[in-house]
Amino acid sequence: MGPKMMAVVKQKRAPGARLAEMDIPRLNPDDVLVKVKATALCGTDLHIYEWNRWARNAAIKLPQVMGHEFSGEIVEVGKAVVDLKPGDNVAGETHIPCGKCYQCQNGQQHICGNLTLYGVHTNGSFAEYTKIPAICARKIPSSIPFKIGAVLEPLGTALRTCLEVGVSGKHLAVIGCGPIGLFAVAVSRAMGAATIIATDVVPERLQLSKEIGADVSLNPMETDLVEAVLNMTHGIGVDAVIEASGSVDALNQGFGYLRKGGAVGLIGLPSTPIKLNLGPNVIFKEARIIGIHGRKMFATWITMETMLAKELLNIDPIISHLKSLSQFEEAFDLIKTGKGCKVVLDPAL
Amino acid sequence: MGPKMMAVVKQKRAPGARLAEMDIPRLNPDDVLVKVKATALCGTDLHIYEWNRWARNAAIKLPQVMGHEFSGEIVEVGKAVVDLKPGDNVAGETHIPCGKCYQCQNGQQHICGNLTLYGVHTNGSFAEYTKIPAICARKIPSSIPFKIGAVLEPLGTALRTCLEVGVSGKHLAVIGCGPIGLFAVAVSRAMGAATIIATDVVPERLQLSKEIGADVSLNPMETDLVEAVLNMTHGIGVDAVIEASGSVDALNQGFGYLRKGGAVGLIGLPSTPIKLNLGPNVIFKEARIIGIHGRKMFATWITMETMLAKELLNIDPIISHLKSLSQFEEAFDLIKTGKGCKVVLDPAL
Amino acid sequence: MGPKMMAVVKQKRAPGARLAEMDIPRLNPDDVLVKVKATALCGTDLHIYEWNRWARNAAIKLPQVMGHEFSGEIVEVGKAVVDLKPGDNVAGETHIPCGKCYQCQNGQQHICGNLTLYGVHTNGSFAEYTKIPAICARKIPSSIPFKIGAVLEPLGTALRTCLEVGVSGKHLAVIGCGPIGLFAVAVSRAMGAATIIATDVVPERLQLSKEIGADVSLNPMETDLVEAVLNMTHGIGVDAVIEASGSVDALNQGFGYLRKGGAVGLIGLPSTPIKLNLGPNVIFKEARIIGIHGRKMFATWITMETMLAKELLNIDPIISHLKSLSQFEEAFDLIKTGKGCKVVLDPAL
Amino acid sequence: MGPKMMAVVKQKRAPGARLAEMDIPRLNPDDVLVKVKATALCGTDLHIYEWNRWARNAAIKLPQVMGHEFSGEIVEVGKAVVDLKPGDNVAGETHIPCGKCYQCQNGQQHICGNLTLYGVHTNGSFAEYTKIPAICARKIPSSIPFKIGAVLEPLGTALRTCLEVGVSGKHLAVIGCGPIGLFAVAVSRAMGAATIIATDVVPERLQLSKEIGADVSLNPMETDLVEAVLNMTHGIGVDAVIEASGSVDALNQGFGYLRKGGAVGLIGLPSTPIKLNLGPNVIFKEARIIGIHGRKMFATWITMETMLAKELLNIDPIISHLKSLSQFEEAFDLIKTGKGCKVVLDPAL
Repeated sequence: MGPKMMAVVKQKRAPGARLAEMDIPRLNPDDVLVKVKATALCGTDLHIYEWNRWARNAAIKLPQVMGHEFSGEIVEVGKAVVDLKPGDNVAGETHIPCGKCYQCQNGQQHICGNLTLYGVHTNGSFAEYTKIPAICARKIPSSIPFKIGAVLEPLGTALRTCLEVGVSGKHLAVIGCGPIGLFAVAVSRAMGAATIIATDVVPERLQLSKEIGADVSLNPMETDLVEAVLNMTHGIGVDAVIEASGSVDALNQGFGYLRKGGAVGLIGLPSTPIKLNLGPNVIFKEARIIGIHGRKMFATWITMETMLAKELLNIDPIISHLKSLSQFEEAFDLIKTGKGCKVVLDPAL
Repeated sequence: MGPKMMAVVKQKRAPGARLAEMDIPRLNPDDVLVKVKATALCGTDLHIYEWNRWARNAAIKLPQVMGHEFSGEIVEVGKAVVDLKPGDNVAGETHIPCGKCYQCQNGQQHICGNLTLYGVHTNGSFAEYTKIPAICARKIPSSIPFKIGAVLEPLGTALRTCLEVGVSGKHLAVIGCGPIGLFAVAVSRAMGAATIIATDVVPERLQLSKEIGADVSLNPMETDLVEAVLNMTHGIGVDAVIEASGSVDALNQGFGYLRKGGAVGLIGLPSTPIKLNLGPNVIFKEARIIGIHGRKMFATWITMETMLAKELLNIDPIISHLKSLSQFEEAFDLIKTGKGCKVVLDPAL
Repeated sequence: MGPKMMAVVKQKRAPGARLAEMDIPRLNPDDVLVKVKATALCGTDLHIYEWNRWARNAAIKLPQVMGHEFSGEIVEVGKAVVDLKPGDNVAGETHIPCGKCYQCQNGQQHICGNLTLYGVHTNGSFAEYTKIPAICARKIPSSIPFKIGAVLEPLGTALRTCLEVGVSGKHLAVIGCGPIGLFAVAVSRAMGAATIIATDVVPERLQLSKEIGADVSLNPMETDLVEAVLNMTHGIGVDAVIEASGSVDALNQGFGYLRKGGAVGLIGLPSTPIKLNLGPNVIFKEARIIGIHGRKMFATWITMETMLAKELLNIDPIISHLKSLSQFEEAFDLIKTGKGCKVVLDPAL
Repeated sequence: MGPKMMAVVKQKRAPGARLAEMDIPRLNPDDVLVKVKATALCGTDLHIYEWNRWARNAAIKLPQVMGHEFSGEIVEVGKAVVDLKPGDNVAGETHIPCGKCYQCQNGQQHICGNLTLYGVHTNGSFAEYTKIPAICARKIPSSIPFKIGAVLEPLGTALRTCLEVGVSGKHLAVIGCGPIGLFAVAVSRAMGAATIIATDVVPERLQLSKEIGADVSLNPMETDLVEAVLNMTHGIGVDAVIEASGSVDALNQGFGYLRKGGAVGLIGLPSTPIKLNLGPNVIFKEARIIGIHGRKMFATWITMETMLAKELLNIDPIISHLKSLSQFEEAFDLIKTGKGCKVVLDPAL
């Protein structure tokens, strides 16, 4: 019997999870073992927790330690690991590439053809310790606090989207003020976006978007977004839309107020196939659409770390709560109800 | 009473058209008058001819001379025209930009915010003479035959799409072997595409795609395209899809055999909003999608003219029939039934 | 004899200029007449004033009204001008494109193959009134003060360079803290550059660069720049260099501290051919170098105006002095000695 | 005493080399051992053979097995190698990345900050066997003959340069008809370049460039290149220049006939710093210059292999001679005198 740790474990193909004692993971030669210092809840975790349709259809093997956004300190490295050592602070990159496929050979390992997802297809980070392939343990400087380290994964998704659609000097709409949308607001602000219009249906999140730097925060339940955005842009529309809500209606509105020749970055996952009016909204507009599934490994990380080191990103307000592992039910409740934004668990609490 | 000409005129909000005598157009200061040497039928013309739903909803004022793809010789220029003169050969660019709007000021006049379309919103080219704003009369060298000049507009759409998605050394699928799809095959072949897979439901068009240069021509009525294309690409999928059919099913199949990280150029207009599965097909794949509505004015024209001058484009077989103006009904029938591909009218016949 | 105005006129092929009475210009159909509200001195003006080698070899016809950076109010428009009217505020774009050449047809009219330069090849703006082709009179909102309007031309050069080399989240060196270099510092700061290292040999300008937003300001007379910059970047070098000094030594140092895979934007004109070590500095480094001669017409202007409207650019401190037309000698002395930075003349003073 | 092999060895810091018996290399865990099937001579090898200034200053440790362009069959793999196995055909990538530095983490491992060069800093391939890090052993399909496999390294440099400067539908000059220049001609031809102008001082090489696909082949000893190229391009100049000669004069001529807004790809290494007239040739022209040091790992390889598999590249005529290892002196003489173009050694002969 090896050493034990506490972890939040999904045990049954049904809603819920429980705190349980687990073996501390044993390493393969290419793995590292990380003492988790901070680990954040993501919408995907909530899907698994609630065991909704998406979760039921995902290739999840139970029992499984939940969670995938984390930072911590390496305590042990596998025999083949040469670039990392105990004592290094790391953040988790959740995309585990195979290293051999077409995409991995083509500079696109973050969308590896055989991609596995840490914390979805493997045990995750809602635990005192976690193991992760060394290639996914991104060393971070000690100047980055662990609670920030725990959200680099979603921050990187937002930052990369901003770079792909182009925000400097541009008029921009960010649809959905969950954590990724808010990160996109913070990054756009830092990169000199001219106008940032944030939209959401939750008033608290709209309020938060203003703190982060949105110029205008609009609720589609109260405002005709297409009309409002076109008015604000002299009838032209915005240069770019960052879609972080997964909402069908919101996306179609977004196409309605996108300018001709504009760009759309898609992050939010719609739960079902959605209807798009490609003629007027994409072809006549010559819209550029790009799906974003993750961070370039590791160009996106480099930019993100650099901007954080220079304190250019106003993201602290997005981390709304800090909880212990045993408070995981409360934590899930906070994000489910929208009362919390980014909720971070600290296994040491 | 001024001089007269013959023209194919849409007179009533009902199917059909008729050959009629019309006044030769009088010029505004920025217009040129062109003696039409060749003018080609496009799918849009067929919509108007058949007066289908799209046509009924488009802002078409009747009576109207039909047609918009043409070439000819300038016979008169307006008072403000300085760059063109009688005797110049020209081809028609159908996008009439306003010159003042955001897009026109931003290097995107081909998607002008106040765009009007020659031959849709104005009288067109199925006539002995036509007038067009000088900015839309693209001077062409005498080495380009008029019947080729008449198809530069759709050829340019295809060429630009090839440049946007990237074809050199790539595996490519072209969906829809109508004229634009076939032009895309010809351009991709000339630019060193590695594999060109052409798809259509009409056997004659598939046969033509092989003449033009497709490596493989597949009929979705006979073949499971997703399976077939994945097999041909070692399970990876194609680097790029050029969608020139407007078919919902074909586009969704295209997303199915697009590789992760691939690009989709959308040209074909679906007749209704269509369902797309954005999660697996766009976001997880990080697909890049771009809508293409026309030719860059005039970077695309320059490249096209250069490649034609060097005889790099094998497009002659795409022009299937040459008819007189008075044979317009027969011409429409040829493209409606798929017996013809690109049908060109010569007003001198 | 028509109406008269005062102007700073270069009269002889020798150093100096004088204030003289001139006819108010008469318009060609495509021109506008602008009442000059503010006009700024540029290094080029100093070359002409001092009648140095560059000036002697440039195709300058004397006598000539000097000056080319300006803003003002339209008081009259030529007969063919439709988009501008008296009362409009405008800033001058100095690149006069022919509209017909390869570059003009290819979306690059700012580097027109037959380019003429307003204020170099034509009479300029150090005057109460100036005429300029309508295409070069960029309408600006009344929210932009005239003294800022007078420096949009060099600001646009800086802004475009920042966009070409990429500054968001990047480590950047700006060589030369004259006005264009300082504008580049301001723009980079606004676009989220991580580190901005400014260099110059004039202490006052280095001080000014800090006010504008440089993180580090270095004098190559006091500091080994290559060593210092490599130290600051962990031996890697900077992602981008913006060269705005024209100095041979400074550029070669810049290549020395550019990182492998970095980008160099060249704005500053060296007075003679310069020696570059292409093997180690460009080829082994895979440096990307781009020469910048002006602003995209008018994509750069749009972005600039948008950022100014949102007050994202900290450029006021760069305008060091405001003088009357008759104080032109004092004004030239200020920029020659480096005591002034951007000196603006107001004909109403 | 282990098993032995024959190899061409540089033994002294003086001109020449000799065929000698060497130990077959022993593998580190990440290496593979390759039975060399074909290995080609490159200009760098000639520098080392002749022991010129470049070679004397390079960090070359003697004795050293010469050569770096090769293909062969794996006969043994190190303990840590998982993706390759004995029997695999491979070609050598000569850039050995460290995997840890900024560039390696930033998607630019081919210009690794700690780059070592196989065959320059390590023993090379003019031998019966060679060892190489597994990451540099690029698996190639059996459809690619070994003699072609031996030249993929320089072919990739040429292909990547073509993609960087853009050749499809463009007018292009290739300076220097050594192997890399000729490869660039072949690739440009395959990618639909409109005009390929090849230049060299050796008549045989100009003749060869025509076989490969150049439209025009010019000798600067006989023709004023600037005048000739401008004449051919209606005074506009070429869209792109690929510099593969390293000649100062040729490069400056290239800038002379480059069009405004054109691109220059630099491959050829000048032996000394060279004078460039940045004002008129780069800044006023807004030239884009990019240095190319190697192949993207492995995006360039993928494209190259794909195009070869489809037989799109006419490169066979570039391989002029096939020799045995023991004929190495004759082989060096062939490339030194220009009588040979690409000379390949087959250790089995």
